[in-house]
Amino acid sequence: MPYLIAPDPTAKRLSRVVSGRDQDGVEQRIHVVEERPLTIYLNKQEIVTAMTIGDYPEYLAAGYLRNQGMLLPDDKITGIDYDEEVESVIVRTVRETNYEDKLKKKTRTSGCAVGTVFGDMMEGLEGMTLPEAEVRTSWLYALAHTINTTPSLYLEAGAIHGSVLCKGGEPLVYMEDVGRHNAVDKIAGWMVLEGEDAANKILYTTGRLTSEMVIKTALMGIPVLASRSGFTAWGVEIARQVGLTLIGRMRGQRFMCLSGEDRLVRDADPAKVKGEAKRAQRS
Amino acid sequence: MPYLIAPDPTAKRLSRVVSGRDQDGVEQRIHVVEERPLTIYLNKQEIVTAMTIGDYPEYLAAGYLRNQGMLLPDDKITGIDYDEEVESVIVRTVRETNYEDKLKKKTRTSGCAVGTVFGDMMEGLEGMTLPEAEVRTSWLYALAHTINTTPSLYLEAGAIHGSVLCKGGEPLVYMEDVGRHNAVDKIAGWMVLEGEDAANKILYTTGRLTSEMVIKTALMGIPVLASRSGFTAWGVEIARQVGLTLIGRMRGQRFMCLSGEDRLVRDADPAKVKGEAKRAQRS
Repeated sequence: MPYLIAPDPTAKRLSRVVSGRDQDGVEQRIHVVEERPLTIYLNKQEIVTAMTIGDYPEYLAAGYLRNQGMLLPDDKITGIDYDEEVESVIVRTVRETNYEDKLKKKTRTSGCAVGTVFGDMMEGLEGMTLPEAEVRTSWLYALAHTINTTPSLYLEAGAIHGSVLCKGGEPLVYMEDVGRHNAVDKIAGWMVLEGEDAANKILYTTGRLTSEMVIKTALMGIPVLASRSGFTAWGVEIARQVGLTLIGRMRGQRFMCLSGEDRLVRDADPAKVKGEAKRAQRS
Repeated sequence: MPYLIAPDPTAKRLSRVVSGRDQDGVEQRIHVVEERPLTIYLNKQEIVTAMTIGDYPEYLAAGYLRNQGMLLPDDKITGIDYDEEVESVIVRTVRETNYEDKLKKKTRTSGCAVGTVFGDMMEGLEGMTLPEAEVRTSWLYALAHTINTTPSLYLEAGAIHGSVLCKGGEPLVYMEDVGRHNAVDKIAGWMVLEGEDAANKILYTTGRLTSEMVIKTALMGIPVLASRSGFTAWGVEIARQVGLTLIGRMRGQRFMCLSGEDRLVRDADPAKVKGEAKRAQRS
């Protein structure tokens, strides 16, 4: 099955050519990703300004608000208005919203992006049970191979993170952004607006598995989170608490399962998996 | 000259051993970095909760507040109280401070961490001139080699960023953190509290050169920012506006100078520079 959404490395708005001089003093022209502000409103309230490459502002806004617990599962969205000129997007709901108190509290999360309301997010995890699911290692290997060789802004310009919503061994929605949390939020927004089921999905990310990434995945209801990068101790601890299957350091034939081993079906022989092409290795 | 501050990969509080199963189902014990909350207060006001590995909380607090423009250059700090048990640190100043309005506005910056007051930070750059300085390419090569081979939490446990304050070809202060902005803020805090001059320094970071990283470096008064990672279009644009020397993609003999080429003295022959040892290559 082809991607429902795949990166568009040729999109003019997402990257530009910048010139520099290399180690030999020779001028080089380099493709570089853009980074622009997008201010997200929920009804009348300004919530956050995110620095983003700028694609899928509606998904980013809806997913950000959902992942921050400001847009509730049963909220009815009456409209999402994106204004490119003033770089803002307004999400409107039937419910009257006011998060003034929440906005006063700031949390700067590990590695990437702001969680704003980390305490609240942890609370949302209490008593949570993630759905039973099967994760075949053959799917993981297939996903890594497909994702790493899909034309992307990363392969074109670098300095960007990717998150991919997958089903079985097939990637469905591949989002990229300068902030890895934006990439995940765009996926969350797509799921909210398309009414997509989370129970049979795998979330793949190129970034590190920190506490906030684990919490977001669990809150989205996705039972499996995989990454080519490493993980933090708290990320592992929370994954074990909520019963999330956490897989890190997924490179070539190697990976490490830190939590939720019970979902893993080891149906592939790692020795038969090819190493990664040099071009596909993220750094 | 030896480091004034170097990473301590043996520090018990900064990492722990976690067990997982690898691709062959074999149990592995892995060193993993910690991630814990630290709430920063300025006098009576709670400012932010940062997720950090937990070392140098005083430097992190002072540097964060300085880089957010809440601690002014002429502010007199009367004390910094760190309480390990409640995971908080209070910075006290002679000046009475109140940043309630500022705290209402949130900015989520690219890639990593929260800038909170991005607009304000840009304003601080207007009319700024960074000091003249010389950057020899032989220094850059020496720095990359020394930093990449210095024992660190990165080499021990991965999934962590590093920032290094350097003078000429020698690294002085090497900070690591799960958030790369924390690492830079710890350096800023060290400079503030030690009264260190910025004009003759080079800042090296393992992370991407996004707009916020460039703005922070310029606000710290450091004329040169170098990284082994890539850069965003806006990061390059701001560096050019403020006349910062920006060097990215510094790996082995290769690098790319995007801005402030006039400070660069090309005194090393790239062909004579050795490639990086595989172990030292960050990913």
